Amino acid sequence: MQKDESAELNLIPQLTLDCAIFGFHDNSLKILLLKWKGTEYWSLPGGVIHQVESLDSAASRVLKERTGLDEIFLRQFHTFGKVARYDGNEIKKKLGHLIDPSLWYERAISVGYYALVDFEAVFPNPDTLSEECRWWDLAEVPELLFDHLDILDKALHALRLELSFQPIGLNLLPEKFTMPEMMRLYESILGKKIDPRNFQKKILKSGIAIRLDEVKKGVAHKSPFLYKFDPERYEEVLKEGGLFFI
Amino acid sequence: MQKDESAELNLIPQLTLDCAIFGFHDNSLKILLLKWKGTEYWSLPGGVIHQVESLDSAASRVLKERTGLDEIFLRQFHTFGKVARYDGNEIKKKLGHLIDPSLWYERAISVGYYALVDFEAVFPNPDTLSEECRWWDLAEVPELLFDHLDILDKALHALRLELSFQPIGLNLLPEKFTMPEMMRLYESILGKKIDPRNFQKKILKSGIAIRLDEVKKGVAHKSPFLYKFDPERYEEVLKEGGLFFI
Repeated sequence: MQKDESAELNLIPQLTLDCAIFGFHDNSLKILLLKWKGTEYWSLPGGVIHQVESLDSAASRVLKERTGLDEIFLRQFHTFGKVARYDGNEIKKKLGHLIDPSLWYERAISVGYYALVDFEAVFPNPDTLSEECRWWDLAEVPELLFDHLDILDKALHALRLELSFQPIGLNLLPEKFTMPEMMRLYESILGKKIDPRNFQKKILKSGIAIRLDEVKKGVAHKSPFLYKFDPERYEEVLKEGGLFFI
Repeated sequence: MQKDESAELNLIPQLTLDCAIFGFHDNSLKILLLKWKGTEYWSLPGGVIHQVESLDSAASRVLKERTGLDEIFLRQFHTFGKVARYDGNEIKKKLGHLIDPSLWYERAISVGYYALVDFEAVFPNPDTLSEECRWWDLAEVPELLFDHLDILDKALHALRLELSFQPIGLNLLPEKFTMPEMMRLYESILGKKIDPRNFQKKILKSGIAIRLDEVKKGVAHKSPFLYKFDPERYEEVLKEGGLFFI
């Protein structure tokens, strides 16, 4: 975050936000990353906070800029406030051709948000300092700049906790999905195998998903039934909490 | 937060922290509040963040100043970033004799922490702007300044979530306690009745509490057994997670 920019643009000084944007595709959890111009370095998308916007609005704005999406499922999960979140020397070495480290604040505190988005609906869009914005498989995430690996870890941890208190999937699965697809979403977030029979029993008992009179075609073996979410019941369970999977 | 103070004292501008400090006494959950000098207005304890200290260190410092305690169970739970968290006119009217609202930033973002402390060990200590620091029963909390009622609500919500993932009590109960005492701690945090037999079964199954060969004397009816925490097992369960009470 640059000092002059902060005063000129009427930003809150020394405060930024970073976003872990998760999507689900090909049975695995993906994260949206930016590649900084003229480098091989990647980071999470982030942004500044204007004096006239709330933290939540700033996060929605950044999400919209990077994905094209409005009305995203977005949660603040932690504020990162260590003294040395980034190292002036490291910035100079890696990003010196892009930014002048002497114009950066020695310290910035960053509010972390995570988002769950519909992979198919996203048009990844780099920001002014980056040349590429694309999905990475969580298992293949490259080295990240600053403390962004720590931010990603904590986002994933928060998402896992959230999973045990509320239904997840409405923003991540296609409109019609099979039970194995939904289970693999849960498995990819939790990073562990789930017992399929218990999973199906819990989901059906909760009433959040309704079985359709349709099967998924073109898959090997037996064609699995398709399900869709019951939006009203989903909303109710979201309010009540209490789907314990971990 | 005052503008001149921020520059002179080398503080992070427009960023503060607020602490919901919980204690347990007489079977009810208490919260530590400050009464502002020459007013009838109360707020949560809070503080500034120095350029050279992390957010967590700043929170520990404030906790130490208000309670006299080190090594407190302390959790960051949410950052409050609405544009109008406080109203200049309200400050002028209510606190104009204490602070000059024109020297305050129009906006500050506050990082919320909650703490669980040993009620008996705390020596409540007002800050420079307050004349009293004392415990309030949660059911009797007065009107609070700024958005502090919202902060308290969210702290309590976070504490309730935490309760279902990890054991709580080591910082809140006396060294030796009865099962009904521990249950009332849980009930007072959750704000609802718990089935005593299920509660005792879950606690004993988890192994976090050990029954002593002692009973509590001076209580009506049958003298209940005393328990103490098994610190090693407590620590293990803390790491594993998974005591579901809500």
